[in-house]
Amino acid sequence: VTQVPLPAGFRAAGISAGIKASGDPDLALVLLDVPGRAAALYTRNELVGAHVTLCREHLAATGGRARALLVNSGNANCATGQAGLDDARALADAVASRVGCKAEQVLVMSTGVIGARLPLERMLAALPELHDAVSVDGTENFARAIMTTDTHAKHCSRELGKARLVGVAKGSGMIHPDMATMLAYLFTDASLGEDPHAQLRETNRTSFQRLSVDGDTSPNDTLLLWSSERAGLTGRLDDALASVGSELARAIAADGEGATRLITIRVSGAPDEDAAAHVGRVIATSPLVKTAVAGRDPNWGRILSAAGRAGVTFPADRALVRIGNSTVYSDGKPHPANEAAAADHLANEREVMLAIDLAAGSARADVWTCDLTADYVAINADYRT
Amino acid sequence: VTQVPLPAGFRAAGISAGIKASGDPDLALVLLDVPGRAAALYTRNELVGAHVTLCREHLAATGGRARALLVNSGNANCATGQAGLDDARALADAVASRVGCKAEQVLVMSTGVIGARLPLERMLAALPELHDAVSVDGTENFARAIMTTDTHAKHCSRELGKARLVGVAKGSGMIHPDMATMLAYLFTDASLGEDPHAQLRETNRTSFQRLSVDGDTSPNDTLLLWSSERAGLTGRLDDALASVGSELARAIAADGEGATRLITIRVSGAPDEDAAAHVGRVIATSPLVKTAVAGRDPNWGRILSAAGRAGVTFPADRALVRIGNSTVYSDGKPHPANEAAAADHLANEREVMLAIDLAAGSARADVWTCDLTADYVAINADYRT
Repeated sequence: VTQVPLPAGFRAAGISAGIKASGDPDLALVLLDVPGRAAALYTRNELVGAHVTLCREHLAATGGRARALLVNSGNANCATGQAGLDDARALADAVASRVGCKAEQVLVMSTGVIGARLPLERMLAALPELHDAVSVDGTENFARAIMTTDTHAKHCSRELGKARLVGVAKGSGMIHPDMATMLAYLFTDASLGEDPHAQLRETNRTSFQRLSVDGDTSPNDTLLLWSSERAGLTGRLDDALASVGSELARAIAADGEGATRLITIRVSGAPDEDAAAHVGRVIATSPLVKTAVAGRDPNWGRILSAAGRAGVTFPADRALVRIGNSTVYSDGKPHPANEAAAADHLANEREVMLAIDLAAGSARADVWTCDLTADYVAINADYRT
Repeated sequence: VTQVPLPAGFRAAGISAGIKASGDPDLALVLLDVPGRAAALYTRNELVGAHVTLCREHLAATGGRARALLVNSGNANCATGQAGLDDARALADAVASRVGCKAEQVLVMSTGVIGARLPLERMLAALPELHDAVSVDGTENFARAIMTTDTHAKHCSRELGKARLVGVAKGSGMIHPDMATMLAYLFTDASLGEDPHAQLRETNRTSFQRLSVDGDTSPNDTLLLWSSERAGLTGRLDDALASVGSELARAIAADGEGATRLITIRVSGAPDEDAAAHVGRVIATSPLVKTAVAGRDPNWGRILSAAGRAGVTFPADRALVRIGNSTVYSDGKPHPANEAAAADHLANEREVMLAIDLAAGSARADVWTCDLTADYVAINADYRT
């Protein structure tokens, strides 16, 4: 495993605290020596995990500054009522006293099963070992400890002159736009702009908002941008944020539950970018499109039908559908001669392209998803039992 | 098989015309001796099958009167360009000349695979046999001949004094609100109201619009109300239309591709009925909810999360979730003691109930769907290949 060093000022660790029955890593900590600027976006679900309430309060109290981040997997601490919020506060208090900072400088996040209380005593007992383990090489261990149904850890980084940006995410199912990234982190030592929230919203718009695994959003979805600002200003931070965000979003789609294909839905010829992204999301959530890819079936009819129900007006008889490099529908009719090449693309590439030109403008957007397989059903039919 | 006689004036038949490779029945005809009043609702998809264009034209030309209806399964005659529309016109012409009426008094409808030309010669050659076969006992044969992935024919009837109403539908996948009924027919000899379209829209609102199998709509979805008006006025037609519409919608949900459970999503405590139905549809299209039912998992967290992303504001800590008769979530927390009974309900009943009270008003709505199983994926991954 190549170690990805964290940006200057950050240290991280991940260990097994016994939250997961499997014994896999499930508790992670990220620290700064002095508070760094932070901005967060949360799920828009009416149901929110306890950590969303706590993080909103803490970032409001500090004006967007944080010293420590504690994340657990295996338990979402959601739909646990006041007791769950008390648990989250107890964890923040414990981290604060161990690290030597105020409780409101600590962020706590949880992901996993909904409706069960956290095993608080075990988590508190594990904090010393976790704190002792933090290091500048902790990215991989942090990324591993926040996984749930993910099949591998997801992180990437960009060098920005003397600054760097490290992104980490977890998520595999229950993934959809509207802040549906599960948990994603953008750690940097580059100085943030005047309005880190606006910076993060723009990053989100073209990355995690363009991602859908199954159309379901989680009550715990959270995206955090956090900087030590030790490396000062760089003009390239926004581009790097967009690039890392997209890479993480694509990694989540590729690791979708039961997925065998990363699907890029490329919508062009739309009246505006929002419409393009919307049509892309409707196609990306079509079970018929996603099962067709699972069956390596170049079923352009389902792509066109899904686009047709998105509520965006376009001339279906002038639209064009491409699978890989093969045009399978244009001028109001299919091109059966090209379907063999399209089927080969679906059969042989792990990353496949479904493109539709709506012939209704010049805007475009890519949306990422994955195929829908019998394994997705098996994973989600048996998750709790 | 119990024969369901058609309303006075109607005769119907269904035969095998060689459209389906399986040799199953695939061509159906319904006749009136004199034109009867008719109203139709069509898919709102941007992509429409040739028959939608033809039926719109014909019903407009006649002011809503029809003598004959020809339906084929196995081929949707959709995305077939001008040639496909010409094929549909050729069929209407052939039926008109055989029956002895004007072409615009003939409706033609198609369902099945998108993008292939109709086997016109075979269909024209089959018309005499089909015409000779029509009878007042033809409901079952008509219903069988319009099936695609349906596992059984779907029809029901109501007696209205001296009048009667017979409903027939087909549909199993690609089913969703927005006129997503595939093909559904309401034949009656009761007189229609002044505005049959309004009558049909109201029937549709509380029946087929409350149905979702997979969230995908078809370019060919059509709902037809057609009356010989031979039995005159009855005060009970609207109720019967609503009742037959709901029964057909539930039958389609129960026969959803790969389904093992008919799921009723019962939303109450909503600010208004539209909001209740909308929340119900979001829950009904959640792959996580539908796979949980497939796994007999009383996963109230997924029900609550799906409701939470519908865009309807409600207090999640005062909402209540019931599975069967068991309250599994209320007052902001789960009730694990009731989950065994809820799991039994899912395991033992073929029709299951998922209910949520949003605690945000007094409106309610039922929405019908089915579970999402590995068989759904297998059916749709392999449909064309």
